[in-house]
Amino acid sequence: MHRDRFYTLTASCPDRTGIIARVTGFIAEHHGWILESSFHADDEADRYFMRIEVKADSLPFMLAEFRTCFAPLANELALDWQITDSAVKKRVVIMVSKQEHCLYDLLARWQSRELNIEIPCVISNHADFRGFVEWHGIPFHHVPVTPDNKPQAYAEVQRLFEESHGDTLVLARYMQILSPELCVAHPGKILNIHHSFLPSFVGAKPYHQAYTRGVTLIGATCHYVTAELDQGPIIEQDVIRIDHADSPDDMVRYGKDIEKTVLARGLRYHLEDRVLVHGNKTVVFR
Amino acid sequence: MHRDRFYTLTASCPDRTGIIARVTGFIAEHHGWILESSFHADDEADRYFMRIEVKADSLPFMLAEFRTCFAPLANELALDWQITDSAVKKRVVIMVSKQEHCLYDLLARWQSRELNIEIPCVISNHADFRGFVEWHGIPFHHVPVTPDNKPQAYAEVQRLFEESHGDTLVLARYMQILSPELCVAHPGKILNIHHSFLPSFVGAKPYHQAYTRGVTLIGATCHYVTAELDQGPIIEQDVIRIDHADSPDDMVRYGKDIEKTVLARGLRYHLEDRVLVHGNKTVVFR
Amino acid sequence: MHRDRFYTLTASCPDRTGIIARVTGFIAEHHGWILESSFHADDEADRYFMRIEVKADSLPFMLAEFRTCFAPLANELALDWQITDSAVKKRVVIMVSKQEHCLYDLLARWQSRELNIEIPCVISNHADFRGFVEWHGIPFHHVPVTPDNKPQAYAEVQRLFEESHGDTLVLARYMQILSPELCVAHPGKILNIHHSFLPSFVGAKPYHQAYTRGVTLIGATCHYVTAELDQGPIIEQDVIRIDHADSPDDMVRYGKDIEKTVLARGLRYHLEDRVLVHGNKTVVFR
Amino acid sequence: MHRDRFYTLTASCPDRTGIIARVTGFIAEHHGWILESSFHADDEADRYFMRIEVKADSLPFMLAEFRTCFAPLANELALDWQITDSAVKKRVVIMVSKQEHCLYDLLARWQSRELNIEIPCVISNHADFRGFVEWHGIPFHHVPVTPDNKPQAYAEVQRLFEESHGDTLVLARYMQILSPELCVAHPGKILNIHHSFLPSFVGAKPYHQAYTRGVTLIGATCHYVTAELDQGPIIEQDVIRIDHADSPDDMVRYGKDIEKTVLARGLRYHLEDRVLVHGNKTVVFR
Repeated sequence: MHRDRFYTLTASCPDRTGIIARVTGFIAEHHGWILESSFHADDEADRYFMRIEVKADSLPFMLAEFRTCFAPLANELALDWQITDSAVKKRVVIMVSKQEHCLYDLLARWQSRELNIEIPCVISNHADFRGFVEWHGIPFHHVPVTPDNKPQAYAEVQRLFEESHGDTLVLARYMQILSPELCVAHPGKILNIHHSFLPSFVGAKPYHQAYTRGVTLIGATCHYVTAELDQGPIIEQDVIRIDHADSPDDMVRYGKDIEKTVLARGLRYHLEDRVLVHGNKTVVFR
Repeated sequence: MHRDRFYTLTASCPDRTGIIARVTGFIAEHHGWILESSFHADDEADRYFMRIEVKADSLPFMLAEFRTCFAPLANELALDWQITDSAVKKRVVIMVSKQEHCLYDLLARWQSRELNIEIPCVISNHADFRGFVEWHGIPFHHVPVTPDNKPQAYAEVQRLFEESHGDTLVLARYMQILSPELCVAHPGKILNIHHSFLPSFVGAKPYHQAYTRGVTLIGATCHYVTAELDQGPIIEQDVIRIDHADSPDDMVRYGKDIEKTVLARGLRYHLEDRVLVHGNKTVVFR
Repeated sequence: MHRDRFYTLTASCPDRTGIIARVTGFIAEHHGWILESSFHADDEADRYFMRIEVKADSLPFMLAEFRTCFAPLANELALDWQITDSAVKKRVVIMVSKQEHCLYDLLARWQSRELNIEIPCVISNHADFRGFVEWHGIPFHHVPVTPDNKPQAYAEVQRLFEESHGDTLVLARYMQILSPELCVAHPGKILNIHHSFLPSFVGAKPYHQAYTRGVTLIGATCHYVTAELDQGPIIEQDVIRIDHADSPDDMVRYGKDIEKTVLARGLRYHLEDRVLVHGNKTVVFR
Repeated sequence: MHRDRFYTLTASCPDRTGIIARVTGFIAEHHGWILESSFHADDEADRYFMRIEVKADSLPFMLAEFRTCFAPLANELALDWQITDSAVKKRVVIMVSKQEHCLYDLLARWQSRELNIEIPCVISNHADFRGFVEWHGIPFHHVPVTPDNKPQAYAEVQRLFEESHGDTLVLARYMQILSPELCVAHPGKILNIHHSFLPSFVGAKPYHQAYTRGVTLIGATCHYVTAELDQGPIIEQDVIRIDHADSPDDMVRYGKDIEKTVLARGLRYHLEDRVLVHGNKTVVFR
């Protein structure tokens, strides 16, 4: 963020010898300056993962030409790949319900340019945060959700997301379950923050579940949303210590601090193309 | 917060036998219902510390009468004591410079009533956050500080703090050093968040100091402000892991997450009368 | 441990006014010097919990007489109570299988008197650690367990535990499931260390389950053993961060560090009478 | 450890384009299978660091020939490099005084083959652990240190270390200060565990210093020993939470759990050639 413009190449392919040499060889041939690089072999899946940042002005061509020149090698290695440009801000649509901690947190990070993104709009099933969001110059859409209007409501969400050319949809304590259609339409693009240390306490009221079981740590999980509730690939998690004196209300309060931090970290990894999804798991090149 | 109105008695005295029995005996005599109680004997200082929450409506009298009735026993035990009422909101004045993370965080907690306080005003040496603060309906005072106007500037801060009947002054990443007069005038009332794990890296640019020393964890410290820079009694601290790949800029970014959490926790302990200062140390009844 | 001899009173009772006053009043009447005291009201269960350490030589009587004198008050308050003497070492029987990390760790703590206990014997379903245990002067019993001899084997374990007047039975990575009879016969006396952050990953091979789910933290849980596998009251837990590069074998290795620390902490709380069981939960006065 | 034999190449050089391509190109040319690889550019120092694990039997030659073939490229890139063979166990000499926690911990890890090392001997300034060490079949040398015999004592330590062909000398809570000669003779080979979170609390009785300052977390630091006390490059650190109720003795006890874990982690990184020293800092490829 505080650096020169760069391109980020992420890729995975079947494991074999010479992958790094071939890919970095291509970059070196064109005098590309590598700022950061990470590699990982998943032995079980026999698959290779990589992420490489190249200084944009060290290369003799722009992204489109990179794509053309690189394609033959990518084909040869059977790479599943993408490349992004740090100068193109990602467009992040935020969904929220009635709790403000994640919303305030994300807007503070956006305001200070810690998150170098565009926020084309915020969507909520309640109208509470309209004033706050609009004060920041961000459009706010109130899309109420009732037991009867779900298909229409999520069709509207999908329309808003697409109309605003969103790259990423963040459920920042959005307390409704998205329609399966919406989840399936945007794999690896919808992030949720779940207020438990998954796989413990799936579903509703996880802090109350934690209280009943008598655990000594509570947590939060940032994961990609799939059609199966709270079962998507995990990006980031963290926990905080509690004890017998903490009521479920205390846990809710402590939990908020973990939720917003874990969501912000997971979102950052996602936006910086540090997360590669593989089956129901992730490789996170921190 | 989610409970009935209660009184919080905090006290310390020379250690002897029978302290708990006498104090809780007084409460029991008047049929007081104890919600929470904590006791600590400091062997080195030979001093006893306590904090007791009593349900307000379990007692036959109000705070003023409690004070009168309790005074003889307090004198006998040589108690240094105070009692507060959960129904009386504390008044917290916030000071900030150009970084928004702690300000947004505190206002979100105030907005959601997680912090059950009044914020009579925000004071800053820059004008940047006027709009944001005023949008929340909170008065904003711009008090510029230059090498030449320090005495007048801090006299103005003191005037604003007193005029707004502030109980607590929070330096939420306020990047100037307060005048010794101001510090001395309000012992145990001014909280600062220092961006290092004290006593490491006192003073300016602690993350750069941490980078140079090559530590593997960075931290933040919430402490009471005294006339001696970064030397006041510590209330709360926490750390986060970094590694060789993190630049000072990365550390600044990670550090913010620790800073706002540690400040919020320390402030909560302070506001709930959980912090008893003793010499340059604290007893924190979490 | 580094202090004068003391008695530890632990108790719980239905909540009402005056409990602390009455109990500490009794102690004060007899000039008892309270070293440490903790109280907790469980609002949901409407039950009160306490733990009080009294200096032995500040009282005019010994434990037996304390019991007699205190009984009327205890009856009046409907206390469920016990009192122990720091001069009487608890007798801890250790059970182990083929992994040494918890065994070495516990013996090091016993050797250095960090754990001020007697270890009357170690019981194992394998003979591997006979030499190591006996070198420390501790009797070692090899009680093999096969699919066919379980009832006899656990009858033998029970006989050894009772014959050695054990207070506590510690499963220090004992990889067999105890018989329900043994569990039921010693409620609140058998501690297990489970190699996951319960309630996640109950049962066999939790690290492999964690690997498959792709979590970012793994943990360990010290809990009392009940007849239901991995469902007993939790005493202590902790976690450690992992990432995509960690294989199940790596997790097993990292996990050991958490397991031994969590077991040692949970055991210490138990031995110092800091753990009060209530239903399937604990109050831990750390 | 649980893998096939492999070679580990570690290297650093001035930063330029094409480094990864050239080095991995060399490996690919010889059909080397890369198991793990890490790269880091230190922008400030303008220096590049790398660590690559290559499967031994994927290469057509052994280590000696690798060295010969690789030398021209290494020279061209001005690499400061080394390569090690996972089949050659490192030889680790342990020094200890009167506290057993790190010694028990290291021997348990060695016994279980978690640490795949040889321990040619243990050296101590006290005789206490002779029996324990010798029971494990490891030679024990008692080298007393008095104010008068330091030069001779450390000459003897140096002789024992060299005679046993030690690769690494671990100060596992060895409570004497090594002679500068010994430190200077083995740069990057002597590891110490310091019982504070450096740079806080350098020197003697750090837990007492921490108690006096009233910090809320205490820590431990594993670092390379240099001639300047507690100032060497840091490899690993960690902390644990304490509070006002903890005496210096309690801190000493808690601290031990951190010390042994941090030492074990730091030692593992060192033994697996994951630590590259650069000035007074380290790059640790975890």
